[in-house]
Amino acid sequence: MLQNDMLESWDRENFFHPSTHLAAFARGDAPQRVVTGGSGSYIEDREGNRLLDAFAGLYCVNVGYGRTEIAEAISAQAHELSYYHAYMGHGTEASITLAKMVLDRAPDHMSKVYFGLGGSDANETNVKMIWYYNNILGRAEKKKIISRWRGYHGSGLVSGSLTGLELFHRKFDLPLTQVLHTTAPYYFRREDRNQSEAQFVQQCVDDLEALIEREGADTIAAMIGEPVLGTGGIVPPPAGYWAAIQAVLDKHDILLIADEVVTGFGRLGSMFGSDHYGIKPDIMTIAKGLTSAYAPLSGSIFSDKMWKVLEQGTDEFGPIGHGWTYSAHPIGAAAGVANLNLVDSMGLVENAGNMGQYLRDGLTDALGGHINVGDIRGDGMLAAVELMADVDAHRFFDADDKITYQIVAAMAEDGVIARAMPQGDILGFAPPLSLSREEVDEIVSKTAKAVTEVLG
Amino acid sequence: MLQNDMLESWDRENFFHPSTHLAAFARGDAPQRVVTGGSGSYIEDREGNRLLDAFAGLYCVNVGYGRTEIAEAISAQAHELSYYHAYMGHGTEASITLAKMVLDRAPDHMSKVYFGLGGSDANETNVKMIWYYNNILGRAEKKKIISRWRGYHGSGLVSGSLTGLELFHRKFDLPLTQVLHTTAPYYFRREDRNQSEAQFVQQCVDDLEALIEREGADTIAAMIGEPVLGTGGIVPPPAGYWAAIQAVLDKHDILLIADEVVTGFGRLGSMFGSDHYGIKPDIMTIAKGLTSAYAPLSGSIFSDKMWKVLEQGTDEFGPIGHGWTYSAHPIGAAAGVANLNLVDSMGLVENAGNMGQYLRDGLTDALGGHINVGDIRGDGMLAAVELMADVDAHRFFDADDKITYQIVAAMAEDGVIARAMPQGDILGFAPPLSLSREEVDEIVSKTAKAVTEVLG
Repeated sequence: MLQNDMLESWDRENFFHPSTHLAAFARGDAPQRVVTGGSGSYIEDREGNRLLDAFAGLYCVNVGYGRTEIAEAISAQAHELSYYHAYMGHGTEASITLAKMVLDRAPDHMSKVYFGLGGSDANETNVKMIWYYNNILGRAEKKKIISRWRGYHGSGLVSGSLTGLELFHRKFDLPLTQVLHTTAPYYFRREDRNQSEAQFVQQCVDDLEALIEREGADTIAAMIGEPVLGTGGIVPPPAGYWAAIQAVLDKHDILLIADEVVTGFGRLGSMFGSDHYGIKPDIMTIAKGLTSAYAPLSGSIFSDKMWKVLEQGTDEFGPIGHGWTYSAHPIGAAAGVANLNLVDSMGLVENAGNMGQYLRDGLTDALGGHINVGDIRGDGMLAAVELMADVDAHRFFDADDKITYQIVAAMAEDGVIARAMPQGDILGFAPPLSLSREEVDEIVSKTAKAVTEVLG
Repeated sequence: MLQNDMLESWDRENFFHPSTHLAAFARGDAPQRVVTGGSGSYIEDREGNRLLDAFAGLYCVNVGYGRTEIAEAISAQAHELSYYHAYMGHGTEASITLAKMVLDRAPDHMSKVYFGLGGSDANETNVKMIWYYNNILGRAEKKKIISRWRGYHGSGLVSGSLTGLELFHRKFDLPLTQVLHTTAPYYFRREDRNQSEAQFVQQCVDDLEALIEREGADTIAAMIGEPVLGTGGIVPPPAGYWAAIQAVLDKHDILLIADEVVTGFGRLGSMFGSDHYGIKPDIMTIAKGLTSAYAPLSGSIFSDKMWKVLEQGTDEFGPIGHGWTYSAHPIGAAAGVANLNLVDSMGLVENAGNMGQYLRDGLTDALGGHINVGDIRGDGMLAAVELMADVDAHRFFDADDKITYQIVAAMAEDGVIARAMPQGDILGFAPPLSLSREEVDEIVSKTAKAVTEVLG
């Protein structure tokens, strides 16, 4: 690979990094890391550091780093045919095979997959197709999309509107008016501390019903939700939540998008979050785990019910006016085929369930009694530790204290990457699904050490 | 690679192809092509056909197919490190090097590049940063974006709104209200046939001024335009257009986005369309030619003037709430570095200018006198032949006759891929920049043959 000594200055002078303090980085005041390699759960950087990546990139490197099977598949595809478009019925052996593999794994009522590049553009595709669907059905007013506070569905203008987090709205004039937000299914942060979990689910249902009532069901096209809230805090739904929400949507003929970008392809110990929680979506958004991030690829899986209407639309109006130049890119498709085969052959869906439970048990043993630990939660290979200034008084830290950022920095110094979730003092874990017991032990011990270092 | 006999049915049963007649494809009534390889200007399909791709995929395979240098770079990166994110100051040698290479090639007043995946998401990033910019400057009302009819800027909800083509709006409720369209700089289709080119430019200026006057300059943030209209018809601007438009924008403190997705990295025989026409943009959108489509990668290049305000924003409000998981993906970055080196070493910018001129001259010699040919135009390695029912009466064909689709189908039968542009009977050419004289001759002779076959 390329080698040179100018990287640091080139980086600070030319590179607009996402989710970064732009001014501090350009001045040299914010940290820089040049990542050079990876193997299994570990990455290496240019300074010779080796770190256990307990967030798998951005919960995406599900099979772990350095899997030769995927690198070889990418290499073979690059030498055979790096690119041709998928417009007007064109495809490649890789993209067609992957479409079949995705549908084989999806719930039976799903019909077709559109391939995009990342989760944000997949959710754009979804909203566009939902509007088209209701136009074909003659329901011109049924267009608004309901999302949840703390949902994460991308950071574009519409996908960022679906997202329900302040960081992605502030100073960007989001959310746009087409998107409405309802209650986050976040039992630990419920307003009424006396509510039981069942009462809180009823609250979520009542809030949703009230929103639909206020707006009018004939103005609302769809609701979008992650099976488990991800970037909003890694929050599994309260028991019974999805069945209760789905019943409301069905009653009002409102479509459901299951955003499975984080949960798809095994992260919960099930192939999809929809299987895991008994959700029956009209659209499923997929990305991350589809290729384990070895190459960019996302997808929107449409149900039979929606697909029939999309077909009707093209019979009435001709070819669909939607497409990305890089839809179903052969390199992404080849990576996807090799990745899904590896998920199967390595038994990663099962391992995610087992090692994820072992991780949460370990975190609970090590930190459950800590005076500042309010909640330890998760599902499958997802875990979070929520920190509080005063657990008994249910008082959170001041955001300006940046408690979790300090803990994450201390952990990185010690060789483990965790994530400070952006809203609240929540320490997030989403390791590769191939995680071993020894790696769990390392994560747990170094997390406990860093929490103690920062909080005593 | 994968081999099997089920591809045709798997494809029709599972794969939602972009820009396709969904119902006809699923029924087996619309054509299917499985592309298996490519070399130079040619692709091969599973049926053993070999076709000269005179549209370079979707004007993106600028260096041509099968370039081993890029395949090797992708392979090396895939084996070394397929993925790490670029959030919070992380990078890879490939992404940092590419950032430097992009800025070295961009106009001097440009400062930083944000890497995305495709042109649509890059234009989302642009609008988001423009809104942020004006919020930081305290200009909360200055937010609308002006685009041009027949512009193409993507097919998402906001990027599709920027696009000014019926196919991408119809039944999708686009454009959204934040986007306004002004006159297409399409002299051949001017309303007043008596206008000189200079008078028509003045008309474009007057229309833009009237739009700004009507809306109020303090509500308009930016204007976006392709240096040459692409999907809208492959239409170079009339002489003096960009200087006149830029003067209007400067007067009203309106930013200019040059969408260089098609024109960037050599297609016009200059590194950028902005160089070619003397445009001074505040943002440049790049994609296609950045990697020659060997892997997905796009970019938004920001000027010093805008970057300073983005820095101010993060000093005031903290890290920027924007990022894609696959921003600056290492595979795309490695492909980009190898591709830009190849553009230089093969002398493709110069070849694009020379062979493009030879192509237009050839088309003019072969078809300039045809009774149905109204216009033959282009610039650099872009060419279009516009067909008419009656040239003297300036009467166009009925869209339902699908004249250009028939010609393109006849050409494909004969081994050359051209594109029926979506609005009007316009035959489009955008071959690889590596095109040879012999390949130009093949394109010209087979185009003339197909035009004669269909139109006599």
